[in-house]
Amino acid sequence: MTFAESGERFTVLRLPPIRYAGDIWDEFEQKNSNVRVVETAAKNREEFIAQLKRGELQEVDFIARTFQSVKQTGLFDKELLELIVAHTQVKGIAHCGAGYDQVDANACRDLKLQLSNVPGRVNDSTADTNVFLILATLRNFQLGHENLMKGRWKTDINSAGTIYGHCIQNKVVGILGMGGIGQTVRDRLAGFGVKKIVYYNRSRLSPELEQGCEYCGTMEELAEQSDVISINIPLNKDTHHVINASLIAKMKDGVVLVNTARGPVVDEAAVKAGLRSGKIFGYGTDVFENEPDIDMDFASLPNVTSLPHMGTATVETIRSMEALVVENVDAFYRTGKVKTLVAELQGVF
Amino acid sequence: MTFAESGERFTVLRLPPIRYAGDIWDEFEQKNSNVRVVETAAKNREEFIAQLKRGELQEVDFIARTFQSVKQTGLFDKELLELIVAHTQVKGIAHCGAGYDQVDANACRDLKLQLSNVPGRVNDSTADTNVFLILATLRNFQLGHENLMKGRWKTDINSAGTIYGHCIQNKVVGILGMGGIGQTVRDRLAGFGVKKIVYYNRSRLSPELEQGCEYCGTMEELAEQSDVISINIPLNKDTHHVINASLIAKMKDGVVLVNTARGPVVDEAAVKAGLRSGKIFGYGTDVFENEPDIDMDFASLPNVTSLPHMGTATVETIRSMEALVVENVDAFYRTGKVKTLVAELQGVF
Repeated sequence: MTFAESGERFTVLRLPPIRYAGDIWDEFEQKNSNVRVVETAAKNREEFIAQLKRGELQEVDFIARTFQSVKQTGLFDKELLELIVAHTQVKGIAHCGAGYDQVDANACRDLKLQLSNVPGRVNDSTADTNVFLILATLRNFQLGHENLMKGRWKTDINSAGTIYGHCIQNKVVGILGMGGIGQTVRDRLAGFGVKKIVYYNRSRLSPELEQGCEYCGTMEELAEQSDVISINIPLNKDTHHVINASLIAKMKDGVVLVNTARGPVVDEAAVKAGLRSGKIFGYGTDVFENEPDIDMDFASLPNVTSLPHMGTATVETIRSMEALVVENVDAFYRTGKVKTLVAELQGVF
Repeated sequence: MTFAESGERFTVLRLPPIRYAGDIWDEFEQKNSNVRVVETAAKNREEFIAQLKRGELQEVDFIARTFQSVKQTGLFDKELLELIVAHTQVKGIAHCGAGYDQVDANACRDLKLQLSNVPGRVNDSTADTNVFLILATLRNFQLGHENLMKGRWKTDINSAGTIYGHCIQNKVVGILGMGGIGQTVRDRLAGFGVKKIVYYNRSRLSPELEQGCEYCGTMEELAEQSDVISINIPLNKDTHHVINASLIAKMKDGVVLVNTARGPVVDEAAVKAGLRSGKIFGYGTDVFENEPDIDMDFASLPNVTSLPHMGTATVETIRSMEALVVENVDAFYRTGKVKTLVAELQGVF
């Protein structure tokens, strides 16, 4: 029997922040009299664990979490998930992001915890960020703006002294990871006159999804052909540091790399060496190995174009993601099953 | 009889800079033994005029100029063009840019001077700059990068404290000026999921060039409908300050404006007021009213995203533009007529 059917109290622990869907949460609570949404005052993992152990969260049936709440709880690793199971009634977790590397999905399976993510809704704004970074990095726009602000335009009328970059036209773009975001990047590039798009993916796409892009059987093959490499793979144990010195060595001289996936899929030390030698023309990134305490020496290189993880940072996308979290909570409440179960758990619940 | 036919000496004054087509110029000189390319040591307009008056340039038959050479000569206005005609043999001028507002085309007609520009070849890189600025301005990316560099990410994990911007999806984009660059911007946006594209142009495009974009009979009509306005009109006496307080008042609250055309088509004081009041969400610009001595107070507003006139600044585009200048010089040398005569002079020569 589900919580909706039994009328039993259903307590959701909601981790912050909620930014644009406060009204949707309110509506969910108001519509269902046995639903109670609670928050935690814990400021860090230590406090959160202490709170769990004191039994203060023992009535919680479900957790809605966010990328940012890692500050309050730390990673949802095996340790924390086991403590949650031991000290609460939690049977499901809804994560507000497409990437859910902060949560150990295998541990969730072992502990019989459902886990949902927010697929799809991040594709548009992340792909736009990706295209922005491709253009910015190819064209040295960040440096141009800096030179403008430093007043260098008056002494050098040629783009304020900024080294000229390159056109995307007639270039080979390699998309590493042709999931939802990779495919949306591919769609965005349709109007830019690139020479061709090649892609690597664990499994080859069907011809209708491929839309004329050329499949590379290995990452190395993609590396050898591409003028621009767009990194769109999820972070997991198989993808940690897949962009490393050995793969970079196979890339074309003057390659442009763009990362809107996750920092740790890239070995920043290897990219740094490539940027310094000129092997890599530029690295455009929305993500870093160690966020938010990033390597400022790396970020300060003139050919690193950077953003502080803004891939999904729009009013429209965040509201849509937060709304899907509520839909997952609501689905669990009504049917006993979240709406968008993560890949690893499909078929398990 | 043309210079090629007569074998008479053909002297070209080449104004700087030549960046990527030095080899093409060399080849032109080497192939044609009666061609001589000369340069000037003038550092400013005063020196250039003095040189003209001293008769030092009297053998010059043709001038190849650039946007940047305005530093050496000032504008090619009526005064300078009359001095050129009085003190040289010049019959033609090849300008290395799509916009030729630095040269008085009407005075050229009166003085029987041919004038060529570089159409078409700037469209790709300028449209890419335009798309970059649309994305950057909608999304607050410049501010995000600044906050990252200031170390604000550690204290605010939400995009380092950057105010969230907006998605381009489902927005109405208004293209003001549907020439070559405007049309290329339209083509770029095909893959971005915008709601619709409206445009204003002196004359309505044919249906096949229109490609589903909606024509607005007036700029005001475009202003009322658009969430994002892309400014792609040339600067001339009719377009000075067309983006002014009266037009801004007709725009939607929170509009985004992007300018890759020319600074003076915009009344910066009016835009500044709109940015301060919040009427305008952001202004993304590659151009300023007074380049390179720009209004730094304006450029320093947090919602101004700026570049130092880098629209065509790629190795590939600059080489292609410089090559077309040589093609114009060569066409005049061989046939007596430049290849890409500016609009105002078509039918005159």
